[in-house]
Amino acid sequence: MGPFHLDERLARDSVLITTLGLCQLRLQNDCRWPWVVLVPQRNDVSELFDLTPLDQAVLTFETNLVASALKDLTGAVKINVGALGNIVRQLHVHIIARNEGDPCWPGPIWGQGTPVPYAEHDKQDFIKKLAGAL
Amino acid sequence: MGPFHLDERLARDSVLITTLGLCQLRLQNDCRWPWVVLVPQRNDVSELFDLTPLDQAVLTFETNLVASALKDLTGAVKINVGALGNIVRQLHVHIIARNEGDPCWPGPIWGQGTPVPYAEHDKQDFIKKLAGAL
Repeated sequence: MGPFHLDERLARDSVLITTLGLCQLRLQNDCRWPWVVLVPQRNDVSELFDLTPLDQAVLTFETNLVASALKDLTGAVKINVGALGNIVRQLHVHIIARNEGDPCWPGPIWGQGTPVPYAEHDKQDFIKKLAGAL
Repeated sequence: MGPFHLDERLARDSVLITTLGLCQLRLQNDCRWPWVVLVPQRNDVSELFDLTPLDQAVLTFETNLVASALKDLTGAVKINVGALGNIVRQLHVHIIARNEGDPCWPGPIWGQGTPVPYAEHDKQDFIKKLAGAL
């Protein structure tokens, strides 16, 4: 098995919030939307169905735990969940809080425009609030 | 509870392939990509976490069953899975087979360009093949 290796682009574009039973929960460093990613700590997994059935069940649990907390925290109209991976092949699940009138609404956010990094204080504040809501 | 009511836009844009334990499996009528949607047969459900825990587990099972079959059938490089629902609020999970060089690659496909309906023969052929692969 070997130690878990996080994809370099995921490491560069996001910051660790906390580790759950299966996944790293990471904040995407783009303050245009509240946007987190779950990365199962398994090597050489690209598709959801590459996970074992138990890991699939745990990922579902963690996805819904985080999605629900994010909706409560942000008051978002809709949560978007997606596992795409066309560019970064390491399996990761995006969870994004969406609101009417946000950039790209009602379209998807991936690959749109240019990321706007958080101010350090805002990033730490968001991380603290989301970790506290889990 | 009442009988299950399918959203009118989902009904218009897709055609029933088969019914699984929880979901309708429907073919999106857009031959630019092999693209199906799973619609849990539950009324008044918008977010994944609005489902009961049992339904969440079944949806995960059905998503991975279909995603795996679609990858085998199409030889796709990557399967994209997403639950967005910014426009159509009834919970539905998109499962799309993607390949390098397809329209929009490597970006997401939602909301891009104009749907290209299937020729009737091709539609029935795809439905038969996918249903047979499940």
